Amino acid sequence: MCRWMAWFGQPVLIEELLFNTKHGIVDQSLHARMGAEPTNGDGFGIGWYGSGDGPALYRSVAPAWSDANLRELAAQIESPLFFTHIRAAIGSPVQQTNCHPFRRGRWLFVHNGYIADFHSLRRELMLGIAPELFPEVHGSTDTEVVFHLALTLGLERDPITALERTVGVIERTAERHGIAGAVQGTFGVSDGASLWAVRYATEGPARSLFASADVESIRHLHPENPRFQRLSPDDRLIVSEPFSDLPGVWHEIDESSAVIVRSGGALEHEPFHPQSPRATPSSPSGLPAAGR
Amino acid sequence: MCRWMAWFGQPVLIEELLFNTKHGIVDQSLHARMGAEPTNGDGFGIGWYGSGDGPALYRSVAPAWSDANLRELAAQIESPLFFTHIRAAIGSPVQQTNCHPFRRGRWLFVHNGYIADFHSLRRELMLGIAPELFPEVHGSTDTEVVFHLALTLGLERDPITALERTVGVIERTAERHGIAGAVQGTFGVSDGASLWAVRYATEGPARSLFASADVESIRHLHPENPRFQRLSPDDRLIVSEPFSDLPGVWHEIDESSAVIVRSGGALEHEPFHPQSPRATPSSPSGLPAAGR
Amino acid sequence: MCRWMAWFGQPVLIEELLFNTKHGIVDQSLHARMGAEPTNGDGFGIGWYGSGDGPALYRSVAPAWSDANLRELAAQIESPLFFTHIRAAIGSPVQQTNCHPFRRGRWLFVHNGYIADFHSLRRELMLGIAPELFPEVHGSTDTEVVFHLALTLGLERDPITALERTVGVIERTAERHGIAGAVQGTFGVSDGASLWAVRYATEGPARSLFASADVESIRHLHPENPRFQRLSPDDRLIVSEPFSDLPGVWHEIDESSAVIVRSGGALEHEPFHPQSPRATPSSPSGLPAAGR
Amino acid sequence: MCRWMAWFGQPVLIEELLFNTKHGIVDQSLHARMGAEPTNGDGFGIGWYGSGDGPALYRSVAPAWSDANLRELAAQIESPLFFTHIRAAIGSPVQQTNCHPFRRGRWLFVHNGYIADFHSLRRELMLGIAPELFPEVHGSTDTEVVFHLALTLGLERDPITALERTVGVIERTAERHGIAGAVQGTFGVSDGASLWAVRYATEGPARSLFASADVESIRHLHPENPRFQRLSPDDRLIVSEPFSDLPGVWHEIDESSAVIVRSGGALEHEPFHPQSPRATPSSPSGLPAAGR
Repeated sequence: MCRWMAWFGQPVLIEELLFNTKHGIVDQSLHARMGAEPTNGDGFGIGWYGSGDGPALYRSVAPAWSDANLRELAAQIESPLFFTHIRAAIGSPVQQTNCHPFRRGRWLFVHNGYIADFHSLRRELMLGIAPELFPEVHGSTDTEVVFHLALTLGLERDPITALERTVGVIERTAERHGIAGAVQGTFGVSDGASLWAVRYATEGPARSLFASADVESIRHLHPENPRFQRLSPDDRLIVSEPFSDLPGVWHEIDESSAVIVRSGGALEHEPFHPQSPRATPSSPSGLPAAGR
Repeated sequence: MCRWMAWFGQPVLIEELLFNTKHGIVDQSLHARMGAEPTNGDGFGIGWYGSGDGPALYRSVAPAWSDANLRELAAQIESPLFFTHIRAAIGSPVQQTNCHPFRRGRWLFVHNGYIADFHSLRRELMLGIAPELFPEVHGSTDTEVVFHLALTLGLERDPITALERTVGVIERTAERHGIAGAVQGTFGVSDGASLWAVRYATEGPARSLFASADVESIRHLHPENPRFQRLSPDDRLIVSEPFSDLPGVWHEIDESSAVIVRSGGALEHEPFHPQSPRATPSSPSGLPAAGR
Repeated sequence: MCRWMAWFGQPVLIEELLFNTKHGIVDQSLHARMGAEPTNGDGFGIGWYGSGDGPALYRSVAPAWSDANLRELAAQIESPLFFTHIRAAIGSPVQQTNCHPFRRGRWLFVHNGYIADFHSLRRELMLGIAPELFPEVHGSTDTEVVFHLALTLGLERDPITALERTVGVIERTAERHGIAGAVQGTFGVSDGASLWAVRYATEGPARSLFASADVESIRHLHPENPRFQRLSPDDRLIVSEPFSDLPGVWHEIDESSAVIVRSGGALEHEPFHPQSPRATPSSPSGLPAAGR
Repeated sequence: MCRWMAWFGQPVLIEELLFNTKHGIVDQSLHARMGAEPTNGDGFGIGWYGSGDGPALYRSVAPAWSDANLRELAAQIESPLFFTHIRAAIGSPVQQTNCHPFRRGRWLFVHNGYIADFHSLRRELMLGIAPELFPEVHGSTDTEVVFHLALTLGLERDPITALERTVGVIERTAERHGIAGAVQGTFGVSDGASLWAVRYATEGPARSLFASADVESIRHLHPENPRFQRLSPDDRLIVSEPFSDLPGVWHEIDESSAVIVRSGGALEHEPFHPQSPRATPSSPSGLPAAGR
C-alpha cells in the first residue's frame, strides 16, 4: 500500500499541503487510516513543475516523517502542480529508483496498488516496453514497468487510452499465466498542463481515491476555516486518502473511472475500461508491437 | 517510544529471535501494540557478544523491517547475549550515533523512554559527565547522556546503584528547572557476563518490561510448541513487549524495580530507588564531583 | 580537508556553479588539487538564501558527485547568495548533523580545517557556549562548536571580531592543554546581506582561499569566454580552490586576513588577529562569561 | 573502475585483509593506484562463506572508508573464502542492488570493468537471461546482467566455459550494434568450494589482476614479515591491485586467461577464449536458447 496526492492550482509552497494540513500526506506516512497498512515508511518522492525545463524530482529512501531535507525543501519549493508519494514496499527494495514519481521528459507518474504476482509477469511485461525506453527502467517496481508500458502505448498522446491499453495488456498477460486480480490501484499522471487520475481494480474494490470539491461548496460548508478561504476556483487536489474528516470537502472518485483536471480547476469524469490488445504475428506474446 | 529486547542463554542465531518468532521485535518495528505509537521506524541497532574482544554493534538509520543487511547478518551472527533496539525518535535526528545500543569497552546500554524536556537539561547533565568520557558522546540523544552519566557514577562497578544515582541526579536537576516527571523508561545494561534491566518512572506508569518465565513453566504450559522445547534452563529474555500472546510465558517486571540475569538463567529481583546526589562545594550544580 | 564555495551576486541557478563550471566544487569532491587529500566524499551541504524566511539547507551523507537529488535541486534553486561545502571527515562520523553549512536564524557558517586535538578540548570549548545555545549543537564536529562559540561571542553583531575572540579562546584553551597549532582553516559566514570569509592558521600556512577578481579584469583577460561575459559587477565568488586554472580570475586571500563582500560586489579586506579572552572570576576556564 | 579481492585459505577475520593490511582494499577505495580513477566510493560489498547455508552479503551505499558498520563486522566475521568489492559507478545509480557481490544460491560474482555502451545492449542481453532468472535482476548494472547470462549459460556446471559463452554472446551482440571493445574486465566467481577468476578485454589491455605467490616464495623473500609467517600453504589471494609493493609476493594473471583456486591453495591456469554462440531459429537474437 502507498499513498499519493496531487495539487493543481495556484502556486503554493509545498509545505502548505505536506506539513501544515491536518492529516496531510506526511502524517499519512505514519498513520494512514484507509487500507491494509497504517505505515508508509519505505521512502517517498515529490515531483513538481517549477522554474526549470520539465518537472524536478526529490526522492529519498528515508521515511517522509523523518527526512530533515524534506522539511527544508517543502518550505522553499513553490509549484502550481506537484505530486507527493509515500511508499509501503511490497517485496521490492527500498531504493531511490523505486520511489515514485517516475519521470520521462515532461511526464510524471505515480501509483498506489500492485500488479498481482509481478515476479512472474515482469519479464513478459518488460518485453512489451519499446526498445528505446527499455534502458530507462532503473529500478525494480511494477509501477516503473507500468509507466514505460504506458509510454510505449501512447501515454504522451492520450494518457487515459494508453492506460486502458496498458491495463488490458497486463490483464491479458496475467490471464495466460493463470493469475487472477491482475491490476489493483490508482494512477496519477501529468504533463504539467493537465492532471489525470485513474481508479481501477481487475477484481474487488479498488484502492481509494478522492478529488477535492468545488471551492464554492467547500467555503459554503466551512465558512470558519481560514485556509479554505484562501482557495481559489482554480485549485484542485487528488488524494488517496482525505487530509481531514470535514464532510463535503472530498468526493470519492468512482471505481473504473478516470478524472481529468484542466488548468483552471475544471474536473472531467470519464469511464475507464481496459482495452484488450490485438495479437499480431509480430508480437507472439500478445503485446502490441512496441513503439509503433 | 522505542522497543528493545535482550537474550541471554545458549548461543542462538540472532534471526531466531528477530525474524522467526511470532510478533518478534522486527515485527514490533511496524506493529507495536503497547505504548503510544505503533511504529518504531527511526533506525535500529543490535549489540552482541561474539568472537571478538568486547561487544560488536550493527546500527542503521533504516527501519528494521526494511534493512536488507539485517536479514543477512541475523542469519550469520550467533551469540549467547545480545540486545536489539528499534527506535522511535522524539525530536533528535535519525542518525547512527543516535541508535542504541551505546557501548563503552565491554558495556552495552539501551533505553526505552525519555528525559522530560531534555533540551533544557542537556547542558547541565553533560557537565556531570566525567571529562575523560565527555568526548565519547557522539550523538544527541538523552540516552547517550544517561549512559555516560551512569559510567561516571560507577556503572562498571555496580550498574543498579549507578543508575539509581544517575536517575537521582536527573530528577534533582529537573526539579531545579521546574520540570516534572523527569525520567521515564526501561534500561538494559550488560558487560557480557550479566544482564541488568530497570523499569522506572518518576511519575505515572513506567514503560512496559517483561522477563521470560522459567523454561519448565513455559514447556508445561505449551507442550505442543517445538521452539519452546529447544529452550534450555539457561535461557532468559527481557523484552519491552511480549513476542506472542501465549499466557504464562512472560512475567511483567514490577515498576521501580530491577532484574539481574546471571549466567545460567537465574533471575534476581531488586527494588530500584533513585539516590539523591549530595551537593558539594566543588559541584555547585548539585552533581557529584565527576570521575573521582 | 574540506572544500567550500560561496556565491554572492545576481541570482543564479545553483547548477551553474556546481555542475556547469570547469573544476567546480562537485568535481573537487572527487579531484581536489590543493591540499593533502584529493577526495571530499564524506557528505556535503548547500545553504541558500531564497524565497523563505531565512536560509534553507540541503545536506546529505552521500558524496556530492553521486547524489541524484543534488542535480535535481541545483537545477531548480536560484539564489543570490549561497554556500556549498564538501566534507572530508577527520574522525567524526559521516552524518547530516556533521555536514556544513551550520545555521542559526539568518546565519550560515562553513569551515575548512580543524581544531587540533579537538577530542581533548571539546568539553571545555562546549562549556564556553551560552547555555541557551548549547542544546542546538546536534552533531560532533569541531566546526559546529566553533560556530556556537562565535555566536556566544557576538557573531550576529560583528562576525570578524567574534571569530577573532573565538579563535583566541580556542588558542588559549589549547595552550593550557599543551596543544600546538590550535586553529587551522578558513571560515565563511553570512547573514544573507553580507558575506564574510577568514583565512587563518595558528601555525604554518593556512588552508587556501580565493576571491574572484573584478568582473572588468576577468572580462578583459578572457574576452572569449561567454560565461564570463554574463557576470555582472555585483558578482563575487569566494572559494577554497579555484574552479579553473585561468590566470587573473582569482586572487589569493592573504593569511591572517578577512574579506567582506557587501551587496553590490564590493570586496573589503581586513586583518584577522585572534583576541585573547580576559579571565574573570566567574569564568575560571578562561572563557568570557557566556551569553552577555 | 572498481576494485575487488578474494581470499581462499585458512579462516581469517575479514578485518585482517580489509583494514590491517598495508594498501588493503579499503585503502584502495580512497587511493587506488592502478587504473583511471583513484576513488572507488560508490558503495561496496562483502560476500562470505560462513556458518549459514550459502554465502552471506553485506552491501552498503556508503564509501567503504567511512562505513562504521564495516569495521564492526570485519572484526567479527571469520571466513575461509570471501570477496570484497569497492565500486566506482559509471552511470548506474548508487544503490545496494547495484553493489557487488551478486549472489544466487551458493554462488557469488564480482566484476571490475564494463560492457561498452551497455545502455544500448541492455534489453537484448536481458532477453538472453533464462525467464526463471529474469525476475532476480533487481538492479541496473551491467555486471548483474552478465552474472544472470552466465547462470543461464551454465555457470553452475562450468564457470569458465559459461563465462566464455557469455562474453561471446555479448561480443556478438555488440558487433551487431556496431559497438567496439564490448567487454572489459576481470571477473571473480565462487561456489564456496573453488574460486575462479578471469582477466579479459575484447580490445586493448585488460584491467589488472594478481594472484598471491606460493607461501614458500613469499616467506623466502620476506623472512622478516610476521604476517607472512602466519600464512599457510592453503592461502591464496586474488586482487585487482596488490596490497603492498613487496616484490615477489604477487603474480600478474595473464590477459585472456583464467585461474582456478582449489581448496588447499593449488592455483591452476587456463586460457580464456570467448565462444561464439550459434544462432538457431528459435533464438533470432543470436542468443542460445536460454535455460537448457
